[in-house]
Amino acid sequence: MRKRKIKKVLVANRGEVATRIIRACKELGIRTVAIYSEADHNGIWVKKADESYMIPGDPVKAYLNFYKIVDLARQTRCNAIHPGYGFLSENADFARYCQKRGIIFIGPKPEHIELFGDKIKSKIAMREVGVPVLPGTDEPITDLEEAKKVAREIGFPVIIKAAYGGGGRGMRIVEKESDFEDLFRSATSEAKKFFGKGDVFIEKYVKNPRHIEIQVMADKYGNVIHLGERDCSIQRRHQKIVEIAPSPRLSEEVRRELYRVAVKSMFKLGYESVGTLEFLVDENDNFYFIEMNTRLQVEHTVTETVTGVDLVQRMIDIAEGAKLPFLQEDIHFRGYAIEFRINAEDPEKGFAPSPGRITSYYSPGGPGVRIDAAVYKDYIIPPYYDSMIAKLTVWALDWEKTVNRAKRALDEFQVRGVPTNLPLLRQIVRDKDFMAGKFDTGYIDKKLPKFKLKPEEGDPEDLATVIAAAIAAYHRL
Amino acid sequence: MRKRKIKKVLVANRGEVATRIIRACKELGIRTVAIYSEADHNGIWVKKADESYMIPGDPVKAYLNFYKIVDLARQTRCNAIHPGYGFLSENADFARYCQKRGIIFIGPKPEHIELFGDKIKSKIAMREVGVPVLPGTDEPITDLEEAKKVAREIGFPVIIKAAYGGGGRGMRIVEKESDFEDLFRSATSEAKKFFGKGDVFIEKYVKNPRHIEIQVMADKYGNVIHLGERDCSIQRRHQKIVEIAPSPRLSEEVRRELYRVAVKSMFKLGYESVGTLEFLVDENDNFYFIEMNTRLQVEHTVTETVTGVDLVQRMIDIAEGAKLPFLQEDIHFRGYAIEFRINAEDPEKGFAPSPGRITSYYSPGGPGVRIDAAVYKDYIIPPYYDSMIAKLTVWALDWEKTVNRAKRALDEFQVRGVPTNLPLLRQIVRDKDFMAGKFDTGYIDKKLPKFKLKPEEGDPEDLATVIAAAIAAYHRL
Repeated sequence: MRKRKIKKVLVANRGEVATRIIRACKELGIRTVAIYSEADHNGIWVKKADESYMIPGDPVKAYLNFYKIVDLARQTRCNAIHPGYGFLSENADFARYCQKRGIIFIGPKPEHIELFGDKIKSKIAMREVGVPVLPGTDEPITDLEEAKKVAREIGFPVIIKAAYGGGGRGMRIVEKESDFEDLFRSATSEAKKFFGKGDVFIEKYVKNPRHIEIQVMADKYGNVIHLGERDCSIQRRHQKIVEIAPSPRLSEEVRRELYRVAVKSMFKLGYESVGTLEFLVDENDNFYFIEMNTRLQVEHTVTETVTGVDLVQRMIDIAEGAKLPFLQEDIHFRGYAIEFRINAEDPEKGFAPSPGRITSYYSPGGPGVRIDAAVYKDYIIPPYYDSMIAKLTVWALDWEKTVNRAKRALDEFQVRGVPTNLPLLRQIVRDKDFMAGKFDTGYIDKKLPKFKLKPEEGDPEDLATVIAAAIAAYHRL
Repeated sequence: MRKRKIKKVLVANRGEVATRIIRACKELGIRTVAIYSEADHNGIWVKKADESYMIPGDPVKAYLNFYKIVDLARQTRCNAIHPGYGFLSENADFARYCQKRGIIFIGPKPEHIELFGDKIKSKIAMREVGVPVLPGTDEPITDLEEAKKVAREIGFPVIIKAAYGGGGRGMRIVEKESDFEDLFRSATSEAKKFFGKGDVFIEKYVKNPRHIEIQVMADKYGNVIHLGERDCSIQRRHQKIVEIAPSPRLSEEVRRELYRVAVKSMFKLGYESVGTLEFLVDENDNFYFIEMNTRLQVEHTVTETVTGVDLVQRMIDIAEGAKLPFLQEDIHFRGYAIEFRINAEDPEKGFAPSPGRITSYYSPGGPGVRIDAAVYKDYIIPPYYDSMIAKLTVWALDWEKTVNRAKRALDEFQVRGVPTNLPLLRQIVRDKDFMAGKFDTGYIDKKLPKFKLKPEEGDPEDLATVIAAAIAAYHRL
């Protein structure tokens, strides 16, 4: 093993991603320091790290208090911080503050975090480096005639969005030009009513898009590679729940073009570390950049599974100044991987978070199964954080085998004491459209009314009864 | 999915391999019937199968009573039986009896099971199809002059073994010809004394061999492929405990030659299903066939991990008459895999089996980790069976990364309530010779006196104390 510059890492996160980072560090021979809130004293990452420190006070702010976190890193002689995802991971000020205090921030340069944190600026920047972006106005519009001209240029359908609002207020989808005037007026007056300003943006409206994202990796010396795409179209209210690598229904032409623009743009921008370019792909295979995530993503496991590359370890290598250890042609893709996010939420109550005690926990094993979890029997899920409690990643040589493995593994997965979305996931993998790779971001909304979300028969615990009956039957044989 | 001939499989085994087979069947859409002894009513495979039936009486005979098992298969409308490994898996009479009762035996033809059950006959058969076998006498010898002539032909060192005995009695290693007469006389007289007959075999003695085995797969139509080798040199008293694919220290020339003879011999013999040819490889890279296992092996997981091929599923396909779905050139090897057998045995008491209640169980997860287990918290390990309770298989792109991952995963593995061999495994992966790929079948005997087999520091539960101390330290900061 070469001599490392990074000797000890503070993991500025919680849950499964904290565990993931600690695992990566252990394999690299790097010591780790975990942090946790008072509510998280039973967290598994607290036990896995070499040292662990509680940050008192508010359970969420514990993971956001960057002065305290950097102080702790220095006091515990860490020379690097890994932010995971969420919390401080896309906070450019935090990345800068780490630098200022002599701590290596394991992630991209602050200027790139900042750039991609700004939707409009990043869109302009990406357009300039040759990436197709969603056509639309870069600045707010108030004037009807100007708006109409812009909409015509973009081409219908377009979407009108309140510039200073959200939540669907002041938002209108316009299918054809003759509807434009009416809908523009109602959008702007609604925007004015709710947000005080009638200003709107006008954008291309993509019907039934697929969400395809490209994983990139770049070192400090201008070496950029991609690690393929992930299809994250299966979302509920813009939350991804199932992610797939590679996409089972993407034309080879589009795939190659996405790789090309991703690598070229990152090269031109001088990007560093890992990152993900998110695109919408429409029914005619046109694609539009929507945003970039300048961090490790939840769904990085599917990329790791099909490429064999450890993204977290390579992020650490890059941060300490190592060159990428491979060229693009060294990256080989094998089979299909699907990640399922197991969330503690109640499908029968509109997927409301369901914190509480896990009374029974059994995760699947065997071939092609990877588990990333931070829970165990008798663990109490605190109510303050994201509802994701585990990630199941399955892999097999082809799509059909992977789906069959997914069914098997999801059936084996047992979480009791709190409701979870497992019944939903089990329905998805049995759905014919899913199996055929026919899904877009509208999939869940379309399917949800047809899915049975009650705990199914065949649930492991119910088998006690089945077995008892079978034994009785056998003795009668 | 194509229409299957095998609709329902009786799994004639227990423990992790029963679970493994049930998983394979579930992914293929095949229903399963499990059997279990009274002692095994808490077995996890009992819950995972679609139906489960207890075989009353002796806890071991339950899995050997083949009339009862075949009756049960027929009564539960199974049309196939998978024997797993051990128990009935290499019983030619059982395979024949299945056939007779119209049940598909998922495994090789009975004649091959029979052939390879006979050490001498199989050696002759393999020699005839061009496989280098351990040079030696095919028949017992009593005459000194004849023995001397044979020994000279074989070349020293040779080993003299009692023909009708075992346990080291009547066994002598002869390094040079001048010692032969004395050692022959003492071997034969010892053999006569202990076993009533002075007859001996004389064989080539291989010093410090590596145990290398080749996985083969063949269908009913003469299509034979290999799935690479496994290095199983790390053994304790002829019990494998760590298995690796591919071998980290085998010359490319020997590897290719092993593949060649394995495929050719299986083709010539008309072998069918999966099987393993075991070889000893000496310090000069000469190799000698020692035996063939006509069944699935415990360590098949490493082959599955580096090739991506599901051996159990393909065994089932072959048994129902499917052609191999790939050609040799479709099999690609990626990275390194290591399997560790986690045994409930006490390293401080000469590795005596340690049945009992598992009070805490936590298996590792994250990238490159596969768990095949049939135990859980509060499971009581019965005293009647093999002491293996779980298999950990780790994978990474290169040997160094795989060893580092193994260290991490073994450290995470937590089994409490019964002693296990985890302390031994953790020492092995930290040993410089192991890391350098320098090991042969004498490895454990040589290393054992130097290893520390007490539970190590850094054991997860002890961390509670460490954390408490760390928290205290933090508040003093």
